[in-house]
Amino acid sequence: MYYGADYYPEQWLEERWPLDADLMQEAGFNVVRLAEFAWSKMEPREGYYEFSWLDKAIDILGERSMKIVLGTPTASPPPWLMSAHPDTFRVRADGVRVTFGNRREYCPTNKTYRHYSARITHAMAEHFKDNPNVIGWQIDNEFGCHDSAACFCPQCQEAFKGWLKERYITLKRLNERWGTTFWSHVYNDWSEIPLPWTTSGSPNPGLALDYRRFASDSYLAYQQLQVDILRQLCPHHFLTHNFMGFTYDGLNYHALAEPLDFVSWDNYPLMMNADPARIAIAHDTMRGLKRSGFWVMEEQSGPHGWENVGPTPRPGEIRLWVYQAIAHGAEGILFFRWRTSRFGTEQYWHGILDHDGIPRRRYQEVKRVGEELKRIGEMIAGSRCRAEVAMLLSYDDRFAFQIQSNNSRFSYSDHFQLYYEALHRLNVPVDIVSPQGDLSHYKLVIAPTLHIVTEEIISNLQRYVKQGGLLVITFRSGVKDEANAVVNRALPGLLADLSAIEVAEYDSLPAEGRNGLEFVIPGLAIMGQKISCEVWCDIIEPKGAEVVARYTEEYYAGKPAITLNRFGQGQVVYVGTMGDGRLYETLAGWLLTLAGVQTILTAPKGLEMTERWQGNRRLLFVLNHTEREQEVTLEGRYSDLLYGSAVVEGRLFIAPRDVLVLREEKKG
Amino acid sequence: MYYGADYYPEQWLEERWPLDADLMQEAGFNVVRLAEFAWSKMEPREGYYEFSWLDKAIDILGERSMKIVLGTPTASPPPWLMSAHPDTFRVRADGVRVTFGNRREYCPTNKTYRHYSARITHAMAEHFKDNPNVIGWQIDNEFGCHDSAACFCPQCQEAFKGWLKERYITLKRLNERWGTTFWSHVYNDWSEIPLPWTTSGSPNPGLALDYRRFASDSYLAYQQLQVDILRQLCPHHFLTHNFMGFTYDGLNYHALAEPLDFVSWDNYPLMMNADPARIAIAHDTMRGLKRSGFWVMEEQSGPHGWENVGPTPRPGEIRLWVYQAIAHGAEGILFFRWRTSRFGTEQYWHGILDHDGIPRRRYQEVKRVGEELKRIGEMIAGSRCRAEVAMLLSYDDRFAFQIQSNNSRFSYSDHFQLYYEALHRLNVPVDIVSPQGDLSHYKLVIAPTLHIVTEEIISNLQRYVKQGGLLVITFRSGVKDEANAVVNRALPGLLADLSAIEVAEYDSLPAEGRNGLEFVIPGLAIMGQKISCEVWCDIIEPKGAEVVARYTEEYYAGKPAITLNRFGQGQVVYVGTMGDGRLYETLAGWLLTLAGVQTILTAPKGLEMTERWQGNRRLLFVLNHTEREQEVTLEGRYSDLLYGSAVVEGRLFIAPRDVLVLREEKKG
Amino acid sequence: MYYGADYYPEQWLEERWPLDADLMQEAGFNVVRLAEFAWSKMEPREGYYEFSWLDKAIDILGERSMKIVLGTPTASPPPWLMSAHPDTFRVRADGVRVTFGNRREYCPTNKTYRHYSARITHAMAEHFKDNPNVIGWQIDNEFGCHDSAACFCPQCQEAFKGWLKERYITLKRLNERWGTTFWSHVYNDWSEIPLPWTTSGSPNPGLALDYRRFASDSYLAYQQLQVDILRQLCPHHFLTHNFMGFTYDGLNYHALAEPLDFVSWDNYPLMMNADPARIAIAHDTMRGLKRSGFWVMEEQSGPHGWENVGPTPRPGEIRLWVYQAIAHGAEGILFFRWRTSRFGTEQYWHGILDHDGIPRRRYQEVKRVGEELKRIGEMIAGSRCRAEVAMLLSYDDRFAFQIQSNNSRFSYSDHFQLYYEALHRLNVPVDIVSPQGDLSHYKLVIAPTLHIVTEEIISNLQRYVKQGGLLVITFRSGVKDEANAVVNRALPGLLADLSAIEVAEYDSLPAEGRNGLEFVIPGLAIMGQKISCEVWCDIIEPKGAEVVARYTEEYYAGKPAITLNRFGQGQVVYVGTMGDGRLYETLAGWLLTLAGVQTILTAPKGLEMTERWQGNRRLLFVLNHTEREQEVTLEGRYSDLLYGSAVVEGRLFIAPRDVLVLREEKKG
Repeated sequence: MYYGADYYPEQWLEERWPLDADLMQEAGFNVVRLAEFAWSKMEPREGYYEFSWLDKAIDILGERSMKIVLGTPTASPPPWLMSAHPDTFRVRADGVRVTFGNRREYCPTNKTYRHYSARITHAMAEHFKDNPNVIGWQIDNEFGCHDSAACFCPQCQEAFKGWLKERYITLKRLNERWGTTFWSHVYNDWSEIPLPWTTSGSPNPGLALDYRRFASDSYLAYQQLQVDILRQLCPHHFLTHNFMGFTYDGLNYHALAEPLDFVSWDNYPLMMNADPARIAIAHDTMRGLKRSGFWVMEEQSGPHGWENVGPTPRPGEIRLWVYQAIAHGAEGILFFRWRTSRFGTEQYWHGILDHDGIPRRRYQEVKRVGEELKRIGEMIAGSRCRAEVAMLLSYDDRFAFQIQSNNSRFSYSDHFQLYYEALHRLNVPVDIVSPQGDLSHYKLVIAPTLHIVTEEIISNLQRYVKQGGLLVITFRSGVKDEANAVVNRALPGLLADLSAIEVAEYDSLPAEGRNGLEFVIPGLAIMGQKISCEVWCDIIEPKGAEVVARYTEEYYAGKPAITLNRFGQGQVVYVGTMGDGRLYETLAGWLLTLAGVQTILTAPKGLEMTERWQGNRRLLFVLNHTEREQEVTLEGRYSDLLYGSAVVEGRLFIAPRDVLVLREEKKG
Repeated sequence: MYYGADYYPEQWLEERWPLDADLMQEAGFNVVRLAEFAWSKMEPREGYYEFSWLDKAIDILGERSMKIVLGTPTASPPPWLMSAHPDTFRVRADGVRVTFGNRREYCPTNKTYRHYSARITHAMAEHFKDNPNVIGWQIDNEFGCHDSAACFCPQCQEAFKGWLKERYITLKRLNERWGTTFWSHVYNDWSEIPLPWTTSGSPNPGLALDYRRFASDSYLAYQQLQVDILRQLCPHHFLTHNFMGFTYDGLNYHALAEPLDFVSWDNYPLMMNADPARIAIAHDTMRGLKRSGFWVMEEQSGPHGWENVGPTPRPGEIRLWVYQAIAHGAEGILFFRWRTSRFGTEQYWHGILDHDGIPRRRYQEVKRVGEELKRIGEMIAGSRCRAEVAMLLSYDDRFAFQIQSNNSRFSYSDHFQLYYEALHRLNVPVDIVSPQGDLSHYKLVIAPTLHIVTEEIISNLQRYVKQGGLLVITFRSGVKDEANAVVNRALPGLLADLSAIEVAEYDSLPAEGRNGLEFVIPGLAIMGQKISCEVWCDIIEPKGAEVVARYTEEYYAGKPAITLNRFGQGQVVYVGTMGDGRLYETLAGWLLTLAGVQTILTAPKGLEMTERWQGNRRLLFVLNHTEREQEVTLEGRYSDLLYGSAVVEGRLFIAPRDVLVLREEKKG
Repeated sequence: MYYGADYYPEQWLEERWPLDADLMQEAGFNVVRLAEFAWSKMEPREGYYEFSWLDKAIDILGERSMKIVLGTPTASPPPWLMSAHPDTFRVRADGVRVTFGNRREYCPTNKTYRHYSARITHAMAEHFKDNPNVIGWQIDNEFGCHDSAACFCPQCQEAFKGWLKERYITLKRLNERWGTTFWSHVYNDWSEIPLPWTTSGSPNPGLALDYRRFASDSYLAYQQLQVDILRQLCPHHFLTHNFMGFTYDGLNYHALAEPLDFVSWDNYPLMMNADPARIAIAHDTMRGLKRSGFWVMEEQSGPHGWENVGPTPRPGEIRLWVYQAIAHGAEGILFFRWRTSRFGTEQYWHGILDHDGIPRRRYQEVKRVGEELKRIGEMIAGSRCRAEVAMLLSYDDRFAFQIQSNNSRFSYSDHFQLYYEALHRLNVPVDIVSPQGDLSHYKLVIAPTLHIVTEEIISNLQRYVKQGGLLVITFRSGVKDEANAVVNRALPGLLADLSAIEVAEYDSLPAEGRNGLEFVIPGLAIMGQKISCEVWCDIIEPKGAEVVARYTEEYYAGKPAITLNRFGQGQVVYVGTMGDGRLYETLAGWLLTLAGVQTILTAPKGLEMTERWQGNRRLLFVLNHTEREQEVTLEGRYSDLLYGSAVVEGRLFIAPRDVLVLREEKKG
C-alpha cells in the first residue's frame, strides 16, 4: 500500500525540507509526488536545466524511506516559453485565444509545444532514470481540466482535416455520413470544413461529434509523445496520469488509460457534497478503465477552493475517504497537498498542514491512518475487488449527449448514476466498463442510454446474452450510428433483435411533465405498484417481448413502458422511461433476483459495505458515513483487522464516521 | 385549399421518391414546397448549375397531381461560397463575425452575397419558369431568424451612413434630432457615427432606433432584389415569404409583406405551449399584414427540437391546428416536414414520418384531414374573415421598446396580448393592422402603447374617431417623436386632443409593486369593483375627459387611472395602467358594449369559435382545444360540413380536441 | 449652504435660459454646475474653442445670484477626438476594446487622451479663471463608473510594468512576493508579466491585487494632471470630484480625495431602495474621506433610469434626503438634473422639471426646501459632525475580497454594513475612516475583516488600544501581507498580540450552513442568549483572551467564537463569525456600554436622529423616514428652527416623512 502526499519543495525554503520530511515519516508516508508544476524551476531558461534542487529534495525524502513519483510539468509551462511562442496558447470555442496566468493554456496539437514538451520530458527522464528513489511518473496533470478538452486553433483545424481524411477517406463519404445535404452544407474541399465554433450556432451533429473525438485523440497523441520517451529511457518505472473521476466527460478515458500502467485519479469528496455513492461511482469508474487497481493521486486533505474556501473536512472524514478508496480498489493514496500554498490561484486549496506549517487536527488524523495502514497493509496486500454486476459506460455516448441532450432535464451522467446508486444502496459491487469489453463473467449488465451502437457492440452484447446474461437497456438506445446520424430503421435500431420491441413513438416531457408506471408482471412482489416517471417516455410496441410495466397517464396510458425478452440463454430488459430514485430501487431489487446476484449485506442508509478478495477469502470493509452509531448483523465470523479483536460475529456496532476492516474466517 | 408538406428529396435516395409521393397523394396533398435549402445541390460549384434531380422530383410529384412552391435557397449558402468570401458572413452586435456551420450566416447588405443571391435566383427562375407544376416561390426562409435581424459589418456601417444621409440630409439635422449635445456626441462628419454595438454600452435612443429601421430596410432591399428577378421571369407565379408570427419583432413585417402576393408563416403551436390564443394572435397578425388570406408554410407535424426534443403532438392536435389556421383565414397549409431528417442541426425536428420513413399515428391524422378537406374544400372556398374590432400593431414601437423597456416587467408584446386574449376569450374576431391603415369599417380600435406618434398617425386616428369610432389608447402613448426623442409637450403628446387628459406624473412600479383601480362610472355593471394594477401608473389630470376608474393606493389614491372622452362623433378611452387578465376581461366587456360589437357566442374556456364569411353566409368554426367534451348552444340553424349531419341547432356537444365546421342555413 | 442644480443649457434653446434661471432663483438656488458633458460644444473641432454660449449662460445665471461650478468635460470626449485616435478607447478585461456611443470610453493612461484632456482643461481654466461667478471645479465625472475602473490596453500593460518596477525594484523580489513558483509562473523578464485578463482564468492573487492598485493609481495620475493645471491657473477656485458613495469600490477613494479641496458625491436614494441606513453610510463614508464637510453634487430629483424608469420619489422624500445629507455633514446640495433630457441615454433620468419643462410637484417641493434653507442657513452655518465611534474602511481590502470572496456569500461591503446598521439603528454617530488615520479621539473602533495588515496599520491600532481604546476585529483579519500572500504564521497574523488568540481552524459554511453562538460572559445582560451565525466560523484557541461567546453546533460546539482581550489600557474584541442583524444589535449594545459611548436618543425604527455641533452647541436633526407619524421624547430644551416654535421639550410628534431641525438651548 502506497501512502503519502503531493509536495512542492520549490515553494518553501530549503531549511524547512528536513522538517517536512520528518513529519511525513512520522505520518507513515512511503511515497511523495513531486515536480508536476515545476517547469520554471527545472528549465528556468530555454534549454538550461536545473535539477540539483530536486535531487536534494529527493535525497532528503529518500533518506526517510520515501519513494518518488515524478510529474512531467507540462500542464503549466513557464512564462518564457509562452511569451516567445504565443501560438501555443489554445483557442476557445468562441475563437478567443487564452492568455497566460493560470495553467492548461496550451494546445496539445501545437507543434512547438510538443517540441518543448518532449524536450523537458526527455531531460527529466535522462536525469532521473537511475535515481533509486524514483519509482514512476505521472504524465502532465488532469488532462482536460479547466475546460481545456478541446482547442480551436488553426493547427487544430489543420489536424482535424487530416483526422477526417483518415476516417472518411473521401469527401463524398464524409458528406454522406454527416448528411451535409441538410441546409446546403455539402463540402467540395476539405479546407471548407469548419470547426464547431460557438459563433456558428448549433452545428451538424456529425461534425460536432467527430470534433470531440478528434480533440480527445489530440490528448491521446500528446500523452503518447511522453509515454514513448519515458518507456524508452525509464523502462522500470511505472507510468500513470491523474484522471478526474466519473463526472468528467471531456475526454475518452478508456482510450487515455490504455497506454498507462495504471490509472490514478484526484478525489475531492467535498466537491461531491461528501456523498458516499458519488465518491464510490468515481472509484469504480476509475478501477474499470483498466479493470485493475488504481491510485488516488490527490486525496482531499482540507478545505478546497480558489476564490472561495470550501467547508472543512469533519473529524474522521479524511480517514473514512482513505478506507473507502481502498475498499474500492485503491493501491496508493496521496494527499493533495502536504502544506497549503501561501501564494497563487490555489492559495485556499488546503493541504494537510495550514499555511503556517503547524501540524494540527488534520495532520493527526492522517498520521493515525498511516499507523493503521502499517499494521494492516500486509493483511490486505494483493487483494482485489470483484463484481457480478457491470454497468457500461461509453465516452462516445457522453460526447453525443453533450451535443444533444435530447431533453433539457436529461443528463447521461445523472441517469447512469440513478442505476448505480440503487445498486450501491444495496451494497452490490459494480464494475463500470466499456461496451466493447469482455462481459462474460457478469450476471447482470446495465447499459443506460446506449446511444451509438456499432456492429462490434451489438455482437458483444448478443454474445453475452446468448450465453445466459441479463442485459438492461433503456430509452434513447440504438438511436445513432457512428457518424451521429439517426439510424434508418425503427428504434431501438440495432438493439431491436435483443429487445424484441419497437418504439412506436416517444414523448419528451416538459419541465413539469410526469407520467406513471404500473408493474404488471404477476407474481412479482411489486405487482400493481405505481411509480412516477419523467423526462422521456418511449411508447413501446412489443414484438415478442413480455410487458413488465405499463404507463398510467396520457394518451398512451396502458402502453408498455418496460419489457422483458428472452434471447438465447439470457434475457433483455428494456426500460423506456426515467424515474426518480424509487424506480431504480424497485428495478434493482427485481433485476438482482432475476440475475441471481447476492448483495453483501443489507445495511442502514449511509453504512457502505464493500469487499476485496484475497483469492477466495473475503475482506469486508464497513464504512459508516453517518454521524450516528450504526448497527449491522454479520453472517459468518470475521477477524477485525483495524481494532485487533480476535473474532467478531453477529451484531456489530460501528461508531460515527468509523471504519471496520474485517477478514472472513473459516467457520468454527 | 392548398394542403401539403415541405419536402427534401435531396436528403433521401431517389429510389424512395415515388413511395413518398404515393403516400402524399394518399394523404390528399396537392402542394409541396421544395429546394429552399438546396443551394449546394443546385449550384454545386460556382456557376455550375444542376437542376435535373429537382426536375425529376417535380415530375414524380407532378404526376401525382401535386403543385410545387420553390424556395430560393439563399437562407443557407454553400460552403464554397462562404469560404471564398468570408466578408459575406454577418457581424454580431458584439463585433464578432459569425462562422460557417448553421444557416442565416450572411449579411443582406453585402455586395458579394447579393451578387451570388441574384445569380442563383435568376438561374432557378430561368429553369423553372415554364414548368407547369410550379405555381409560386418562397423567397429565402424566415428572414431575421437566429438573431440575424441586424448585421454590424463594415458594409452595413457604410450603408447606414447612406441611409442616414437620405433621412436627415444634413448632419446638423441629425445632431438636432438625436440630441447629440447629450454627453458630447455631436458628429462633425458622417464617418464618425458609430453603430450601436454592445461594446459601446447603452446607446443614444435615436441612433439605436434608426439602426433597427436600417437593418429592417436591408432585408427589404435584399428581398426586393429577388422579387424583381422573379417578377420579370415568372410573371404568372406567386411570390411569398415565410414570416414568423406575432412574437417575432426584429423586422418591420408591414413593409416586408408589401411587395409579396400573400404572406406565409411558420406555425409551431408546441413552441407556444399549444395555447389557442397565442396561436390565434399569430394567425390574425399574419392575416393583417396584407389584410388578406395567408398560408401556413410550415405547420408543426411532430415534436420540434434541435438539441432537445419537444413534446409530441397529442392525438387530434395536428388536425385541430389545421382547422384553427383555416378558421383564421389560411388558404394553404403545408406541414414541416414530410420526413424527419436523419442528419443535421434539425435532426430532432420531427416530420409527419419519423426518421425511418414508416407512416404511423401522425401520418394517419394528416391523411384524415386530407380526406376531410377534399370533402369540404369547395364549400369553404372563397370565404373570408371579417372583424369589427382592430388592434394597431406598430413595428416602430416594438423597436423602440426593445431599446428602452420603460419598465423591466413591461413587454410591448405581452401587454398587446393581454387585450387580444380578453377579446379572444369572448370569441370576438380581431384584425391586427398598422396604425397607418384604413380604420373606417371598425367599431372598436385598440392601440396599446402607441409610443411613437406621427402627424400621419394622428390624422388617421382623428379621422376614425370623428366619424364615430371608439379608440382605446394607453400609458406610454404619444411619448416619442420619430427620432425617438421625448416630445416637448405634456403627455400623451399628440394624443392630448383625442384623450383630453394630461399625464401629470407617472410611477413606474418596482417588481413587487401593485396599485389598485376602482371603477367609478355610475350605472356601469362593474361600478365599485376593484382590480389590481401593476408595472406603470399614469397619474392623470383630466382636461375635459370623464373619469372611468381611479387609483386606490399610494399618494395618488383617488387620482384618475382610466378616462373617457368624446371627440367628434366618437369616443376615446385612455387606460393609464396595466393589470392582469382580470382588468382586460372587465375592459373588454365594457368596450364591446360601448362600441356595439357582438361576440360570436359565449363558450366555455378552451372552446374557440370563429367565422369565415361567404358573402353574407356565415361559416362557423368550433374548435375544442380541451381534453374534455364541451357543450355549446347555437343560435340559428347550421349544416355540419365535416360530419355531414344535415342540420344542427340548439345544444351541441363537441368531443375532446374535435372540430366542427358549420354553415349557417336560412331559418325554417 | 450651497443649494442648486446641475444644468445643461447646451441641450435647450437659448430662448429658454432666462426662464430656467428665473425658476431657479424662485426655488432659492445659489449654485449651478455646468459644462461637464459639453466638450463637443466647447471644442467643436480640434483646437477650436467656443465658450461664448457658456459665458452667456453663466451671465444669465450670475445675474440671478447664482454661483457656478464648472465641470471639466473629460468623462465624455467628442466624436472627432475618438474617431481620430481609436487607441484612446479603453480595453475591457476580456481584451475587447470599447467603442463610441456612451461615455467613459477612455483609457486614463493613454498619452494621447491625456494630451487632449490637459488642453481642454487648460483652455477652460484660462477662459474662466477670472469670471466672478465661477467658484470652483469638478474634475471629470464619476471616475470608475460603468465598469471603467480598470483598462487592459497595451499602454496600460506597459505602464503596469513601470509601476511594478517601482514597487519591487527587482524581478526576483516580485517573483518571491507573488509566489510565482506556484504553477511555474516564474518571470524572467518584466515583459512576460501578463495582465489579469479574464481569458487567463483565475489569476495569481498578488498580480491581481497589484493590477487593481495600478488601475486606481492611473486615475489618481489622470486626476492630478487636471489638478495641476487648475491649481496653477485658478488658485482661488476650489477643486472637487463627484464620488459614488459607499458601495462603489473600484478605486481607492482615500487616495483620490487627497489632492481635492473637498469631496462631492452623487446621491441616488431610490437606487438604494430609499433605505435610510444605506444612504447614511454613504454620507458618512464620503465625509470620512477627508474628514470634513462634503457636497452632494447630484441629488436625486425624480425617477432615475436608462432603459427603464425607476419609481418616482414620494411627496416629501426629496426634502427628507436634502436634510439627511445636511444632518450627515453636507455643505452643498445640487439636484441632478434641472430638467429631464429629451434625448440621449439618460432620457429617462428625470430632473426637477419633466421633459416638457413645466414646474410640477417636484419643483414645488424643491422650492419649499429652498425657502427653508434661506431661513435656517445662518443658524446651522459652520456646524460640524462629531463621532465617538469609528469604522475602518480599507480599499486595499475591498480589492482583495473582489479577487477572492473567501466565501460565496461573503461581501466585504455587506458585512461592513451590518455593523454600521446596528449603530445607525441606535442613532450613534459614526466616522468611517482609513486604518492608517488618527484614531486617538475615538472611544470605539470597529475594523471589519481587516484583511491585509501592514506594520503601519498594526502600529496605529496598537497605539490606539494601548491608550485605552476599544478595538473590534473579526474573522479573515490579518490573513494577508501587502502582496496578497497568506502570512507565514498562525492567524490572525500580525493581530495576534492585540487579540491574544489563535485561529486553530476555520469552517467556511456552505449556502445553507448555519451554526449558533451562545454568550457566556457572566453578568452580561445577554448571558445565555443564543444567536444564529453563518458564512464563516473561526475556531478560536484563546492565548490569554477571555471567551465572550461559544459555538453551539457541529464538532466545534463549545469552542470560542468571540473573545475579549485587555491590551495596554484598552481592550480588543475578536468576532470570529458572521451573523444576521440580530447579532450586531446585540454586539452594538454591549460594545457601546463597554466603550462608554452614549447614543443620541432611542427612537422608533425609521426615525433617524443625528447631530451637528456649533462649537458645544448641539443641532439635532430628526428625520422621519416612515409613512407614519412618530413620537420621540427629548431630553433637554430645544428651539425648532424649521417650524419656528420658540422652544420644544419632552414628547414630540413628527409627521410622516417630515424633518425637524432642533437647536439645543441652555436649561431654563
